[in-house]
Amino acid sequence: MSDRKTALVISAHAADFVWRCGGAIALHAALGYDVTVACLSFGERGESARLWKEGKSLDEVKAIRRDEAEKAAAVLGVADLHCFDLGDYPLELDREDKFRLVDLIRKVQPKFMLSHSQYDPYNTDHMYTTRIALEARMVAQAWGHNPGEKVLGAPQLYLFEPHQTEQMGWKPDTFLDITSVWDKKRAAMECMNGQVHLWEYYTRVAQQRANHFKRNSGGMSGGRDCQYGEGFQSVFPRTVDEL
Amino acid sequence: MSDRKTALVISAHAADFVWRCGGAIALHAALGYDVTVACLSFGERGESARLWKEGKSLDEVKAIRRDEAEKAAAVLGVADLHCFDLGDYPLELDREDKFRLVDLIRKVQPKFMLSHSQYDPYNTDHMYTTRIALEARMVAQAWGHNPGEKVLGAPQLYLFEPHQTEQMGWKPDTFLDITSVWDKKRAAMECMNGQVHLWEYYTRVAQQRANHFKRNSGGMSGGRDCQYGEGFQSVFPRTVDEL
Amino acid sequence: MSDRKTALVISAHAADFVWRCGGAIALHAALGYDVTVACLSFGERGESARLWKEGKSLDEVKAIRRDEAEKAAAVLGVADLHCFDLGDYPLELDREDKFRLVDLIRKVQPKFMLSHSQYDPYNTDHMYTTRIALEARMVAQAWGHNPGEKVLGAPQLYLFEPHQTEQMGWKPDTFLDITSVWDKKRAAMECMNGQVHLWEYYTRVAQQRANHFKRNSGGMSGGRDCQYGEGFQSVFPRTVDEL
Amino acid sequence: MSDRKTALVISAHAADFVWRCGGAIALHAALGYDVTVACLSFGERGESARLWKEGKSLDEVKAIRRDEAEKAAAVLGVADLHCFDLGDYPLELDREDKFRLVDLIRKVQPKFMLSHSQYDPYNTDHMYTTRIALEARMVAQAWGHNPGEKVLGAPQLYLFEPHQTEQMGWKPDTFLDITSVWDKKRAAMECMNGQVHLWEYYTRVAQQRANHFKRNSGGMSGGRDCQYGEGFQSVFPRTVDEL
Amino acid sequence: MSDRKTALVISAHAADFVWRCGGAIALHAALGYDVTVACLSFGERGESARLWKEGKSLDEVKAIRRDEAEKAAAVLGVADLHCFDLGDYPLELDREDKFRLVDLIRKVQPKFMLSHSQYDPYNTDHMYTTRIALEARMVAQAWGHNPGEKVLGAPQLYLFEPHQTEQMGWKPDTFLDITSVWDKKRAAMECMNGQVHLWEYYTRVAQQRANHFKRNSGGMSGGRDCQYGEGFQSVFPRTVDEL
Amino acid sequence: MSDRKTALVISAHAADFVWRCGGAIALHAALGYDVTVACLSFGERGESARLWKEGKSLDEVKAIRRDEAEKAAAVLGVADLHCFDLGDYPLELDREDKFRLVDLIRKVQPKFMLSHSQYDPYNTDHMYTTRIALEARMVAQAWGHNPGEKVLGAPQLYLFEPHQTEQMGWKPDTFLDITSVWDKKRAAMECMNGQVHLWEYYTRVAQQRANHFKRNSGGMSGGRDCQYGEGFQSVFPRTVDEL
Repeated sequence: MSDRKTALVISAHAADFVWRCGGAIALHAALGYDVTVACLSFGERGESARLWKEGKSLDEVKAIRRDEAEKAAAVLGVADLHCFDLGDYPLELDREDKFRLVDLIRKVQPKFMLSHSQYDPYNTDHMYTTRIALEARMVAQAWGHNPGEKVLGAPQLYLFEPHQTEQMGWKPDTFLDITSVWDKKRAAMECMNGQVHLWEYYTRVAQQRANHFKRNSGGMSGGRDCQYGEGFQSVFPRTVDEL
Repeated sequence: MSDRKTALVISAHAADFVWRCGGAIALHAALGYDVTVACLSFGERGESARLWKEGKSLDEVKAIRRDEAEKAAAVLGVADLHCFDLGDYPLELDREDKFRLVDLIRKVQPKFMLSHSQYDPYNTDHMYTTRIALEARMVAQAWGHNPGEKVLGAPQLYLFEPHQTEQMGWKPDTFLDITSVWDKKRAAMECMNGQVHLWEYYTRVAQQRANHFKRNSGGMSGGRDCQYGEGFQSVFPRTVDEL
Repeated sequence: MSDRKTALVISAHAADFVWRCGGAIALHAALGYDVTVACLSFGERGESARLWKEGKSLDEVKAIRRDEAEKAAAVLGVADLHCFDLGDYPLELDREDKFRLVDLIRKVQPKFMLSHSQYDPYNTDHMYTTRIALEARMVAQAWGHNPGEKVLGAPQLYLFEPHQTEQMGWKPDTFLDITSVWDKKRAAMECMNGQVHLWEYYTRVAQQRANHFKRNSGGMSGGRDCQYGEGFQSVFPRTVDEL
Repeated sequence: MSDRKTALVISAHAADFVWRCGGAIALHAALGYDVTVACLSFGERGESARLWKEGKSLDEVKAIRRDEAEKAAAVLGVADLHCFDLGDYPLELDREDKFRLVDLIRKVQPKFMLSHSQYDPYNTDHMYTTRIALEARMVAQAWGHNPGEKVLGAPQLYLFEPHQTEQMGWKPDTFLDITSVWDKKRAAMECMNGQVHLWEYYTRVAQQRANHFKRNSGGMSGGRDCQYGEGFQSVFPRTVDEL
Repeated sequence: MSDRKTALVISAHAADFVWRCGGAIALHAALGYDVTVACLSFGERGESARLWKEGKSLDEVKAIRRDEAEKAAAVLGVADLHCFDLGDYPLELDREDKFRLVDLIRKVQPKFMLSHSQYDPYNTDHMYTTRIALEARMVAQAWGHNPGEKVLGAPQLYLFEPHQTEQMGWKPDTFLDITSVWDKKRAAMECMNGQVHLWEYYTRVAQQRANHFKRNSGGMSGGRDCQYGEGFQSVFPRTVDEL
Repeated sequence: MSDRKTALVISAHAADFVWRCGGAIALHAALGYDVTVACLSFGERGESARLWKEGKSLDEVKAIRRDEAEKAAAVLGVADLHCFDLGDYPLELDREDKFRLVDLIRKVQPKFMLSHSQYDPYNTDHMYTTRIALEARMVAQAWGHNPGEKVLGAPQLYLFEPHQTEQMGWKPDTFLDITSVWDKKRAAMECMNGQVHLWEYYTRVAQQRANHFKRNSGGMSGGRDCQYGEGFQSVFPRTVDEL
């Protein structure tokens, strides 16, 4: 492993990492992080409506979704796109699958992790993924799991923005300015050809979050300018040397 | 106003700032902040049991409490201790009192503020103070309040640790390492002669929070050492350039 | 499938649909809906105490419970009673079981669905059933699940009334007037010979909910009369053209 | 009073009714409602930064804000704009002020009411207004308040969309399609010359809420088209004859 | 003051103590407690609809309500009915009023207190009363309030059952068997001639709570019999010597 | 089974019962209870860092942990220590494992049960254990599970104190005075040689809880003395004959 700082995104379906934290990925890549993205599935069954309407087969859908994810990852500067290909709707991991995820976490040794909201009645794959992320984080910290391997520290788990945030009980406590990498996030979103209707939707999300960034950095009294933003909810407390 | 960074503590009673954020005060003073402490009351009626048992008069109780607060403030390196002397149990502010607090906020222009938990069924003065702190923060941001004055930006409001945290619904999201200034916090606590039983109590609080600091900075895998800590809950989201 | 409007009840045990939404079933049947009831189990192990005390065998208990459920369903005007016979205490669905439920959802194409509260520390089968209902709803919406089948839209999921509502964190947002079909609900309840003690209990529930109906439709100022009611909590937001 | 249906908006500051429920107002006006808007203040001190920066006096600011509110109200088809002129930042109502609001509620006899979220740490005037709205609703229902007057029934209180919804704990349960009156809402927003930066912000809000409307009316399986929407949270349960 | 154990009910309106904790009052009177009831108002404006419809004057309404409350108190065995006559809808206490309540609390030195739920959007007097009860409890504990008086210990504050419990966020944690005094509660309810519609309503409440008592004392496996019950929510933790 | 009162602790890992409810165990043993402790795992993988660092094998770690647990149980006066040896990090129970736990519950027929908090993002084994405890409690109550066996009544489930209580959403409602058995709890903790750093931590926890015990039994007005305490959160309501 290199000396570079690292981050790990755990995404239920192939496109989630683009809509929900593409800016964070591109920004941290630009800051020198090696960002790894784990796609637990391609979203082939549940998030590829257009392809199914076109009559594609399962293998074709998966291949197209993988291709889109790879292109988006390349645009964002992802260091490693890791496709687990576990199936979706519903996504289910057995013990061995979980340990594969633990292996990845240990390999990456992320400074922070990113995953879904803890509640999502529209999409149970999303909340299941976060449950698994917490479980895998715990196992990765265990000295008795594959003794001799470097165990995980205590990385923050940021929950990225779900669709219809209020229905998910998601409350962002951290706004990130992604203006400098906005063109990359937009370009990555445009790799997702099956979900064109979401390009403008998530562009507006970024603009609203930029407004919130400004509000919380000064408001009418000189809030810092920000054109595009992303919001995150922290699961764990921070440790600081200055408030 | 100087160019130094500033912080403002809004404390319902004279001793709250010592037990609940004395470490944060001393640490930021050491970091070069001018820390202002606003004591809305001396806690003369409700938090001076020992003095009343000794038969002191109201004026005597207030004088003693003021003296203790001043000594503690000096030990912690408080730049300005501002006693509003508004009475306690119950504490009540009228419109003019609120505007005095707004004046102070504007004068200080704090980078961040500190106050009580938002709920406290044991001590309604505490939750009332936070309600007033939010109201005063809002007024201080209004361009139409004393037009021409410098309006307030959007400082974080940290809620410091209440007694019996779980009963107050208080959840810390930020742990601060106060090891380097612990001797000052302990010395400041020892200025509070009427509440000797709390010296050891809040020493243990600081030790437990240090443990939580370690847990969240690495746990069994090399958490950063920390002997004494304080915990805080943020009301507003943060704005950052790196997660 | 007919052109009639449809609804689907997902009930953990055989009698739940009677106590908790028998009025809604009878009312919508009267309004021209085809109402399908899915009983995931007969409640044979956990909700048939009287039969076990009488020394019945498992098969006998199941047969009796099925018979009661069928009689109650007939009284209520259920279009299709679908017994999955998956066992109870605890109820557990594997992937294939879930897909059988998805098949039923797709076949029914319900305008709305009904199931249990999301939390129930007394009866984990109940909350498990709602978890599965949400998961199956999601799968039924997936274009890649059995491609070519008609996918599900976005039906509301109403959570019907649990026992000891406050312990379950259940909060009704919708009160339904079931006065016109009350005799049917009462008759259906009386089909449940093993739970006679609940007949009066759920009659009182209906009377209390009628009072709440009145309160929320006018109170002391001409609330609409209502003798029997049922309450429901919505999981998803409504879409309307008039408030 | 006419036989027309009625609605009442209770707005802390002059512009809130435009951004937060302008669509609902215009839509219900078009549906034949008489919509009354109560502005408790002009937002003269706290929400008129641009005017203060230009050096306007308090009276000038109030006159300009009143003028803007009247223009916006006219565009939206408001039947009666009622300016209480009670001052803002902080807004405070004494007993007599509350009774003036009760008088208005009784005069209007609204089928439903609209006001702010119940929590808002950024803007305590907002949450205070909702507290007062609930208190005034209760008094308006009292047979002993001005005996002989027609008492209030039990109108729903919808909480319209606050800024930074997640921070306010606001969760919409009702999405309203305002596409047919969007041009009016936009025109009304453009009457607010001091807050030009919010025109695009609230246009995007309407577009996002339209997306949510679609999702909840069918999603990928034929959700009803909607270009602009507004979201609302209900305080009280609904009473219905069909789910 | 006698050596008898004591309890204090703080009731917003004259009849609340009857519907909501009449059983607890009668039971503890029978157990040898001196139970004091503080009625902050007669509920003359807001909870006497029938009397107003009959054309009574304010003084007549108050006299009738006082008479009913006194009769009910006598039936229940209340040791002292204390009518503050502070007016209702809305109920408002100034500093002096609060201190009168503090005086009463100190005089009674209750082993436990009873008041309303902490949230009630239908009836803001109710939640206001609980806020005042907590504030007065705090002042009564202050050694500096009327020094020399016996200060209050730390009595539990039980929140009695509101109407429409789920809407108030009220969750009972304690069920009390009131079977032995049910005839007294029923007789006390029948003193409330203006609210006849509530006699049966609160009889059913008592029957439902008896069912919950049984469930939580054994369920199908020999729950203790109970015909009538009342439920309460505790604000403060208990201190025990055995779980 | 004897006539003695019984209690059952369900502990995810071997040491949890010591830190979290060792005082309750020793106290109830002293009161004449037969206290059974079910350790679902030894915590061998996840909570034995020191042993792994020393190079122990899995079998050695388990043997050492078992030995420590047995010693601690003996010190505390545990009647039966039941090691399920199901593995940890993650802990997983299949249907048969759950039924073994049900068998134990039925054998013990506990007056009350003890387990972990319902939420724990740091340690998913903990919250999983409580989920299983509730499921097993439900099955143990079912007349159709192993018909003929004595079914379970409705024992309270107390949630003992987790690490970092506020992060777990754990709120104690019951404080137990464990002063009389403190020496046993301390001695039992000192059996846990791999977690020496926790001895002082949980000693301080006991001292803080003693302070809370005092506060809630009288505060400045004669709170009962208490040197060491433990806190618990109740899942179910209590049934009482006196408040």
